[in-house]
Amino acid sequence: MTRTLHLAVAAYGVGGPGQHGLWKDPRVPSNASIDVRHYIRQAKLAEAALFDAYFIVDSQFITADYPSHYLNRLEPLTLLSAVATHTSHVGLVATASSTYNSPFNLARRLASLDQISGGRAAWNVVTSFDTGTSRNYGLAEHLDYATRYGRALEAVEVVRGLWDSYEADAFPASVADNTFLDPTKLHALEHHGEHFDVAGPLNVSRSPQGQPVIFQAGVSEEGRDLAARVAEGIYAPGGSVEQAQAYYRDIKARAAGYGRDPDHVVIFTGAAPVVASTDAEALRRSREIYDEDDDFDRKLGFLGRSFGAHDFSTHDLDAPFPDVAHLAEKGGRTAGQAIVERAAAQGLTLRQVVQTLTEYRPSPFTGAPGTVADAIETWYRDEAADGLNLNFRTLEEFERFTGDVVPLLQERGLFRTEYTSGTLRGHLGLPVPENRYTASRSRGDR
Amino acid sequence: MTRTLHLAVAAYGVGGPGQHGLWKDPRVPSNASIDVRHYIRQAKLAEAALFDAYFIVDSQFITADYPSHYLNRLEPLTLLSAVATHTSHVGLVATASSTYNSPFNLARRLASLDQISGGRAAWNVVTSFDTGTSRNYGLAEHLDYATRYGRALEAVEVVRGLWDSYEADAFPASVADNTFLDPTKLHALEHHGEHFDVAGPLNVSRSPQGQPVIFQAGVSEEGRDLAARVAEGIYAPGGSVEQAQAYYRDIKARAAGYGRDPDHVVIFTGAAPVVASTDAEALRRSREIYDEDDDFDRKLGFLGRSFGAHDFSTHDLDAPFPDVAHLAEKGGRTAGQAIVERAAAQGLTLRQVVQTLTEYRPSPFTGAPGTVADAIETWYRDEAADGLNLNFRTLEEFERFTGDVVPLLQERGLFRTEYTSGTLRGHLGLPVPENRYTASRSRGDR
Repeated sequence: MTRTLHLAVAAYGVGGPGQHGLWKDPRVPSNASIDVRHYIRQAKLAEAALFDAYFIVDSQFITADYPSHYLNRLEPLTLLSAVATHTSHVGLVATASSTYNSPFNLARRLASLDQISGGRAAWNVVTSFDTGTSRNYGLAEHLDYATRYGRALEAVEVVRGLWDSYEADAFPASVADNTFLDPTKLHALEHHGEHFDVAGPLNVSRSPQGQPVIFQAGVSEEGRDLAARVAEGIYAPGGSVEQAQAYYRDIKARAAGYGRDPDHVVIFTGAAPVVASTDAEALRRSREIYDEDDDFDRKLGFLGRSFGAHDFSTHDLDAPFPDVAHLAEKGGRTAGQAIVERAAAQGLTLRQVVQTLTEYRPSPFTGAPGTVADAIETWYRDEAADGLNLNFRTLEEFERFTGDVVPLLQERGLFRTEYTSGTLRGHLGLPVPENRYTASRSRGDR
Repeated sequence: MTRTLHLAVAAYGVGGPGQHGLWKDPRVPSNASIDVRHYIRQAKLAEAALFDAYFIVDSQFITADYPSHYLNRLEPLTLLSAVATHTSHVGLVATASSTYNSPFNLARRLASLDQISGGRAAWNVVTSFDTGTSRNYGLAEHLDYATRYGRALEAVEVVRGLWDSYEADAFPASVADNTFLDPTKLHALEHHGEHFDVAGPLNVSRSPQGQPVIFQAGVSEEGRDLAARVAEGIYAPGGSVEQAQAYYRDIKARAAGYGRDPDHVVIFTGAAPVVASTDAEALRRSREIYDEDDDFDRKLGFLGRSFGAHDFSTHDLDAPFPDVAHLAEKGGRTAGQAIVERAAAQGLTLRQVVQTLTEYRPSPFTGAPGTVADAIETWYRDEAADGLNLNFRTLEEFERFTGDVVPLLQERGLFRTEYTSGTLRGHLGLPVPENRYTASRSRGDR
């Protein structure tokens, strides 16, 4: 397979104050987070720029001082099916929790989106690290890390099994023979595993891409392992180019270790480009965005998210960083552990931790269009990423990227100049998975 | 409130052979069940005819010989959000199970549809009587009747509570004050009940109709009680005009008994009209539809659905009706009990039960346009129904109804000649429920 650059845009809601000040954009309604027209407009912009995918992040737990773009949001799958009928090519990635959904229901909703979009759906599998989510689902305590990831792996297996319920030719729909269904092409999964018992069959047939694409965003050991086993697209954390390269090598090697083709795991690194007419102007704007969100109390509150919504305002800001290592497990673990380790190694106070964590660092994709295109080319060629999952402060900044940077990437032969497929699998160079029962029959199995 | 006639259309999928032979209609694609354009076309027809609502039925359990319109289907909420952006007035009623959904997830998806549609969403609460559904959700045995209905009532209470998470003025979104959210207008439900523990808050604000409308289709004692307590729209079973009147009186009296305004429980009776140029032609067509579906084995299979998917083909057709009374509980109870009682009272064999149950009975709404309009007027004026939830064999028959019968209903002053509201609550004459926290504050409570 010829390696090609991939681009996605991550749709955050609008909110504020916080890192997503889109609600202050005079071109965007202040309630755009719940206005489907806002998302349709974003997705159409992404499609006009030939992007691979439109990506919906999600959270199922909020508090009044939670990241504000999550405060008032449309549920991703409900949202994307509305977006689907107003677009024709761009992939549609819905974040959904494997911890707080039943595989049967989720398989059905994703398969429905895949049919409605003509084969453009993807499931971004998350395990919901926010402890508070558990209390919205009847659990006083969050499931532990190992259970969440074990459950996620099994959920993906069940969902994929259900997506094979119907073989491709299950519905002859022959009026002459009065035959709608060929019952030998309908299969019950009868999955009985550690976390789930699901009989099937699912009542939705396969789409033009066979099955929705599986995305994941593994960072921890368990997350990387899950990604290497099942993910076909990855929303990667970013950081420096060296950090991204190390992540890239690790994931591709793990995938190969599971007998998978590393090209079939497409790594999208998260990035927030700031493009302007000159590098200096872009840096000025980048700093302006930082300053607009620079609120110590908000950042202190946000720090708690890595420790199970722990309230850090009860601690002395100028005392050594408190002993919260045991809470990292409740907040996704990896982020919290890294903070604890750094605080210990450098002897930081709580105030210094917040300042260090949130100090101004311009995105590597900040500058004039040529500078940003250079950076993208470097990241891509040096195997720090197969593509980028972008997010933008304003619609105008999104349009500047698609208008000024994308053409440069196309001129350099890095990015497509037209869609050559109508499905997300097609855009990502992923094969259509063969139906397991058809495959079994063609191998002469019973 | 002036009483007015209401009309909805129930969207079944297409399938066959069976009672939904829409797949044989040359104007309808044979895979229309999974083609969103089919549903959009139906909904647009309903809206052009000023219908109150477009109603999606559902099942989460199939077998190869199950009612064929369920075989291959889009999940109702995913489907309706796509339909929402192609319509502007018609209400959108999504069937969803209170037994197999978490209230938080369901509240979120319904609130999202309500936002996407601008206040046109409704939840048709079902408890999923098909035993087989339980095996798709990890339960070897179906929940019993009392548990399902207790859970349904509590689920509606929780979902409604979550829908009040934000007061109407929670988002000042003032750039001048840098204030997006007023945190005093965000409320956590902290529900702790017999079936559910749900903390909240929900991360979706209220729509123009305040909250989605609650539909229900109660027939059994528990179902009627649930309907009377919480339903604002009812999908009623039909039968003879006398049976429908008895049901109507019973539900309205029960609602009044719970201190509710009976006008705020709008009863839609299920009906499958057959309209033709003359009464004789309509009756001929009605018989033709019956004969097309007249397949004893299929009907025998369908009988099993009232007894937990029991396989009646193992019994002697000409022996007395078998002792299956204990299985009625697994199949929705009421239907099975009625069958057992009738078989005993009349000394019927299994073959006779199938024949009696499925004998040809033309719909009371069969005839020339004037005849059908007369029947609707009678049912409406004699309080057998507040409206009808219609289903049609072909698109052409739907168009004949909207083209030839609806104008007669309008001439008689029974049915609206334009939409006077943009929300489903508006069409149904239902008040916008006041937010409980706003109400509490205005009463001076803490």
